[in-house]
Amino acid sequence: MKVMVGGTFDPLHDGHKRLLARSFELAGPDGQVVIGLTTDAFASRKTHPIRPYAVRKAAVEEFIVEKKYPAQWEIEPLNDQFGSAVDADFDAIVVSEETLPVAVEINRRRRGKERSKVDIHQITCVLAEDGRWISSTRIWRGEIDGHGRLIR
Amino acid sequence: MKVMVGGTFDPLHDGHKRLLARSFELAGPDGQVVIGLTTDAFASRKTHPIRPYAVRKAAVEEFIVEKKYPAQWEIEPLNDQFGSAVDADFDAIVVSEETLPVAVEINRRRRGKERSKVDIHQITCVLAEDGRWISSTRIWRGEIDGHGRLIR
Repeated sequence: MKVMVGGTFDPLHDGHKRLLARSFELAGPDGQVVIGLTTDAFASRKTHPIRPYAVRKAAVEEFIVEKKYPAQWEIEPLNDQFGSAVDADFDAIVVSEETLPVAVEINRRRRGKERSKVDIHQITCVLAEDGRWISSTRIWRGEIDGHGRLIR
Repeated sequence: MKVMVGGTFDPLHDGHKRLLARSFELAGPDGQVVIGLTTDAFASRKTHPIRPYAVRKAAVEEFIVEKKYPAQWEIEPLNDQFGSAVDADFDAIVVSEETLPVAVEINRRRRGKERSKVDIHQITCVLAEDGRWISSTRIWRGEIDGHGRLIR
């Protein structure tokens, strides 16, 4: 199947890796994964500094290439929460707990445009050593590393 | 992975089949699927008559056996919306558009019990010929058949 997933992916932590891995798993060997990567302008609303699009893109590409997923894939710029997901022809969207409402809204908008709704796959966030979510903000603050290990 | 799914499955229509098929797909060949089947007492809240548990169970079993899914599976009685999903050790729950809120509530309750949350996979409902959902109620009313074909 054709799967869409999106994010800022900076730095690429274990939560992001889970999101990407599950997207490729769902797509299957003959499927396709479209990764929406937030543009620098859109990502700038985050509370911490974000590395440039090209740097973040290279990190995502490196992860995917190393995993040798058989599915086809491409990375496209995401200028807002929805990107091409309201209009594109695809089967399922993979989201985290935080972004489940975005997926539900995408289906609402698709219905308004008489496009078929897509399946929604919500993964649970990966927990850090302290039982709280791994997040880019926490990594940027120096609380944890990309695997959720506490930095003391 | 270990997947849970639930329903009344009466009569077993294309929407139910999609839900079951996706559950086995997600579980993978080495995985496990637990199908919660509503008890007669719980199913009696439906607006139309429901066939007995044993009859509904046999229909689900027949579908699964015919498909020759390699994963392990079992059917367990569902006495309420949640069944064992609040306490059981599993990875993902498969729901329809109608039951997405139940899955979100299951995770909320799991969190309250300090159990790890599960992934949620929401499939879109299968549409009948007229573009509306296939549902047991519509089949019972004689509007459509189990494949969503209009009965004139």
